[in-house]
Amino acid sequence: MGPHPAVAAIRLAVRRVLHDLLTEHHRTTAALPHAPSHEPPPPLVLVACSGGADSMALASALAFESPKLGIRAGGVTVDHGLQPGSDVRAAEVVLRLRELGLDPVDSVAVTVGRAGGPEAAARDARYAALDTAAERHGAAAVLLGHTRDDQAETVLLGLARGSGIRSLSGMAAVSGTGGRYRRPFLELDRQTARKACMVQSLPVWDDPHNADPAYTRSRLRHEGLPALEKALGKGVVEALARTAQLSRDDADALDSWATQAEATVRDAAGLLECAKLYALPPAVRRRILRRAAIAAGAPAGSLFARHIEEVDRLITGWRGQGAINLPGKVVARRQGGRLVIRQG
Amino acid sequence: MGPHPAVAAIRLAVRRVLHDLLTEHHRTTAALPHAPSHEPPPPLVLVACSGGADSMALASALAFESPKLGIRAGGVTVDHGLQPGSDVRAAEVVLRLRELGLDPVDSVAVTVGRAGGPEAAARDARYAALDTAAERHGAAAVLLGHTRDDQAETVLLGLARGSGIRSLSGMAAVSGTGGRYRRPFLELDRQTARKACMVQSLPVWDDPHNADPAYTRSRLRHEGLPALEKALGKGVVEALARTAQLSRDDADALDSWATQAEATVRDAAGLLECAKLYALPPAVRRRILRRAAIAAGAPAGSLFARHIEEVDRLITGWRGQGAINLPGKVVARRQGGRLVIRQG
Repeated sequence: MGPHPAVAAIRLAVRRVLHDLLTEHHRTTAALPHAPSHEPPPPLVLVACSGGADSMALASALAFESPKLGIRAGGVTVDHGLQPGSDVRAAEVVLRLRELGLDPVDSVAVTVGRAGGPEAAARDARYAALDTAAERHGAAAVLLGHTRDDQAETVLLGLARGSGIRSLSGMAAVSGTGGRYRRPFLELDRQTARKACMVQSLPVWDDPHNADPAYTRSRLRHEGLPALEKALGKGVVEALARTAQLSRDDADALDSWATQAEATVRDAAGLLECAKLYALPPAVRRRILRRAAIAAGAPAGSLFARHIEEVDRLITGWRGQGAINLPGKVVARRQGGRLVIRQG
Repeated sequence: MGPHPAVAAIRLAVRRVLHDLLTEHHRTTAALPHAPSHEPPPPLVLVACSGGADSMALASALAFESPKLGIRAGGVTVDHGLQPGSDVRAAEVVLRLRELGLDPVDSVAVTVGRAGGPEAAARDARYAALDTAAERHGAAAVLLGHTRDDQAETVLLGLARGSGIRSLSGMAAVSGTGGRYRRPFLELDRQTARKACMVQSLPVWDDPHNADPAYTRSRLRHEGLPALEKALGKGVVEALARTAQLSRDDADALDSWATQAEATVRDAAGLLECAKLYALPPAVRRRILRRAAIAAGAPAGSLFARHIEEVDRLITGWRGQGAINLPGKVVARRQGGRLVIRQG
């Protein structure tokens, strides 16, 4: 008798990612000169684990699949220090990961700042700690337990920004420096991860933050998405996850177009020529304008669609209007058929 | 003292669209040969009016602005025959539009079929009736009362399909044959339209369908969107409307890229070359594949992202797999480095 379908599903998802990693590993090491008697050490893959159902399921699948592929498997848990007793919690997660047979297993305590709000600050601190852990152990990859449900929530959060398809593209299956972060469960639902923990008798910890209505993501999870599903039907989560993938591919293609086009719309002095910009499709032109503003010093996070629209009107609706002020003290003006975007 | 801000807002929105129409009208008629003594008749603009707040506000603004621009203004109301007494209701709307000074005013009774569900069937019947009315009167345009809130709902409905950014692009400000349909209120919120009716003492009719939970859009309006706003903040409707515009521009740009690229990936016999398709960005390649499937006879409405992904794997993940069956009895297969998509 095979494993429970939920366990089979999480293992398959992890196996696919480990296969990819192994292929990449062999490609890299084959390029290095080494004596046949000195095989390079097998790659190390870490799982980032909060002790919650998603990452515990991920850890269990990694522990099961890695030996069969000759991969070393370890774990990291991050103590955000946001609740009393979080250090005890982290120590417990370390214990559980060791019980699964993972080695090395680290607990890393971080200090969460305030920049960008509580959720963004916690995330920044977490990824910095995971980066450090990965480098210290020379890990080939860090697996993250984000599920299709997390992806759907991320798409809705991006939608609320209203800043275009890049923000609808959610989380990538592969991200970070050198593609370090991998998300094997991005097409798997949260329910399957929970079920896999249950049938494997893995104790899981429910982060109280996940149910705290002070957090946008939590409100979305417990109120927003269920209401949307009630109105639109059960397929919403899947549709949102698919939207993420399609939007990502579309955004990538348009970015590459903008890169190519940008080279053709600058004059000998490197200034943007209005007539040539005018001839481009609006979607491509606005991407070039956005990049030019960022290159001139406008902070990407403060540069909204309405800013770019206003700059765009210097091209498409020119009637002698004055300079446009952008965030970061960047100013855009039209001068002699050229668009000049610079600081001050 | 000027008009109430809500009334000023609806009038400005209509004035802008009438200006556009007048500019287009003059461009067209200037090209026609006519004696100076025989000026062409002023253009006629119709408003499509259900008697609800949005379209009553639109009718009032059209009645106010059109004489100032030398435009004739009329109205059409469609009796869908879905409720007892809908004919009486339509006659009432005709009366109100005449009271506003509109002329001609028509009531058109339609028979709503069943194709595509109740909402789609009613919409199809309505647009067919509006098309007929516009042609009968030689109208230059038909104004529709869709607001930013309707647009937000349309984006969410598209999101639920999960079929990519074209379905996120909502309703266009200009659409239909020759750009017949115009939506002056697409950047105006529903609340402003209601307010404008109130302060002008215009009686409005609340369509019971709008509150009927049997309708997806109604559930979205009364439950889905409010829950999303509660989770994500008040700017959600605006963000969704902006997403529509950005997605539309992006989808247009990618469609034009696909059109250009398609010509370069066919061999002398007109067959798609796999190696050339492979070199394209996935977003462009999938658009070409989708068009090829539709051109071969697959009904666009039944062709989902997962179908195209499967065909795409004949290009990107070729390992000798067999033919892919698509809707409309269309079959895609790889043969000698070519992709063959045809019926049967």
